[in-house]
Amino acid sequence: TDAAARQRALARQGMLTKPSGSLGRLETLAVDLCAMQGHDHPVIDQVAITVFAGDHGVCDEGVSAFPQAVTGQMIANFANGGAAISAMARELGASLEVVNLGTATPLEGQLEGVRHRPIAPGTANLMRQSAMTEDQVSAALQAGDAAAGRAADAGAHLFIAGDMGIGNTTSAAALACALLGEAPEALVGPGTGLDAEGLSHKAAVVVRALQRHGGHRDPLTALQSLGGLEIAAITGAIMGAAQRRIPVLVDGFIVSTAALVAVRQQPQVREWLLFGHRSAEPGHQRVLDALEATPLLDLGMRLGEGSGAAIAVPLLRSACALHNGMATFDDAGVSNRA
Amino acid sequence: TDAAARQRALARQGMLTKPSGSLGRLETLAVDLCAMQGHDHPVIDQVAITVFAGDHGVCDEGVSAFPQAVTGQMIANFANGGAAISAMARELGASLEVVNLGTATPLEGQLEGVRHRPIAPGTANLMRQSAMTEDQVSAALQAGDAAAGRAADAGAHLFIAGDMGIGNTTSAAALACALLGEAPEALVGPGTGLDAEGLSHKAAVVVRALQRHGGHRDPLTALQSLGGLEIAAITGAIMGAAQRRIPVLVDGFIVSTAALVAVRQQPQVREWLLFGHRSAEPGHQRVLDALEATPLLDLGMRLGEGSGAAIAVPLLRSACALHNGMATFDDAGVSNRA
Repeated sequence: TDAAARQRALARQGMLTKPSGSLGRLETLAVDLCAMQGHDHPVIDQVAITVFAGDHGVCDEGVSAFPQAVTGQMIANFANGGAAISAMARELGASLEVVNLGTATPLEGQLEGVRHRPIAPGTANLMRQSAMTEDQVSAALQAGDAAAGRAADAGAHLFIAGDMGIGNTTSAAALACALLGEAPEALVGPGTGLDAEGLSHKAAVVVRALQRHGGHRDPLTALQSLGGLEIAAITGAIMGAAQRRIPVLVDGFIVSTAALVAVRQQPQVREWLLFGHRSAEPGHQRVLDALEATPLLDLGMRLGEGSGAAIAVPLLRSACALHNGMATFDDAGVSNRA
Repeated sequence: TDAAARQRALARQGMLTKPSGSLGRLETLAVDLCAMQGHDHPVIDQVAITVFAGDHGVCDEGVSAFPQAVTGQMIANFANGGAAISAMARELGASLEVVNLGTATPLEGQLEGVRHRPIAPGTANLMRQSAMTEDQVSAALQAGDAAAGRAADAGAHLFIAGDMGIGNTTSAAALACALLGEAPEALVGPGTGLDAEGLSHKAAVVVRALQRHGGHRDPLTALQSLGGLEIAAITGAIMGAAQRRIPVLVDGFIVSTAALVAVRQQPQVREWLLFGHRSAEPGHQRVLDALEATPLLDLGMRLGEGSGAAIAVPLLRSACALHNGMATFDDAGVSNRA
């Protein structure tokens, strides 16, 4: 990011007609965006959202409150404009595309805005074998990178990755445990709505998965063993956006875990990341801590799809509007403090 | 508010294509707005912002980091579009008016969007006498009510009150102490940026003010003794908006203290209040606790002008977009949990 633009932005924030620091995180956001975008008037007009979808073999172990068919059904719901992220994309004037990396149930009919890049009909069951082959994880990373490339070609000022995959909090929890060396109890949560018994079973599944694949602190090996097709694609998309100098607004537990893989693999990715919200999924906080991230919002959301990032977009736009639109003390003839 | 509309909204939230509860506070916000607006499709299109400005006699005691002339200078800055709330009103497509209740320094020239309703050239010094006379506090309450009336006439879906008045955190801290029976140390903060010595002096001023006027737990008497012209007007505006069934999005420490006066005077006002943000001014949390309020944002802001409420408006709009725009499980053909 651009250190000179950051310095100019900091100086401007000190001259605007307000007590210094009184806009709190909106000031640091504006300064960060100036540094990322490399100029003095940050802009978040064009927002590109890509939802990555894929199924999870670990659903065989009964780890989700919802049936696996929902992954495919939700891809159709995205295409038809009925999902939360669809409504938010309309509200924001953002572009929305879906990349289907492979579902357990075949999808029927043409779906607008859906790119079919099926790598497998879901991952293998990570409790019993590696979730992906090396070729599969490569293909997923590449599909993510291609989405970042399309965002760059479209002139996106901001990239948001979303996730859809029944069972993916199990995969993300196992992956985060492997990367962070944490115990499953710290990272396994209710996902879409498990009760206490379901939660305990899910934790046991993650324990067995870590026994099989644990100790893989290498990020891409852990991703292959324990991740998901959509999680790998999100990792690729985040690395691709950062390489193309596009700020990334990170969503909740799944996307943050993919971001952790990306940052462990390429530490310079971190400076392109902003964090939209703290998820109600309890493992998210550990992943945020590992990324030294303080998200903008804490509204008890736990939906995925990129929704918690989309909700935060207007805060970035407001930070830009204030940075670009306020008068300075000199211009306005307002006295500064003594 | 409308209990039947609330029940219908709750039922709809349970049918939308997401795990129940997974949109967190955006769900309760949408339900609250349905109940306030009394129908099934909540709307926050027309937002009316009124900034109330007035000077404070207690500035004679040296309680602010900024000179008193800034109140009048900022009124001109609002009119010229250079203040934070000006930039946010443009960003939101909200209407912005300023009501000048009286400044210590005369204002020069015509100022667009400013209504001059001078009651006095600032309040009297609350450390030495009552800040306002009974007639003055009545006139200020009435000026606030008139602003709520204009918002209703304009068809506002949401009302935001903002404050401008150098010295007003001293007044608000004293007023909140009187209403809550708290000690000044709990409610006095740095305002626009006092250092430790300034803070200690400000607390001593509040102690003396409470010795003189303390024990006035009656809200309007406390308001007259310790409040400000703009604080009284905000109290009147909040009561007036609630009476006209307009939801109010409450800003930070000053506006929340005015809201506390309003709720103590008319408890039914409370159900029309939403809270935009938690201010960095430390006394705000105590006032929020007394109002049993959990604000939407916590971004370290402490500017006033209604800015912390304005920043939260897109969250309300997003809650509406999700409630109105998402498909149900039945419509989308998505399986719900077993």
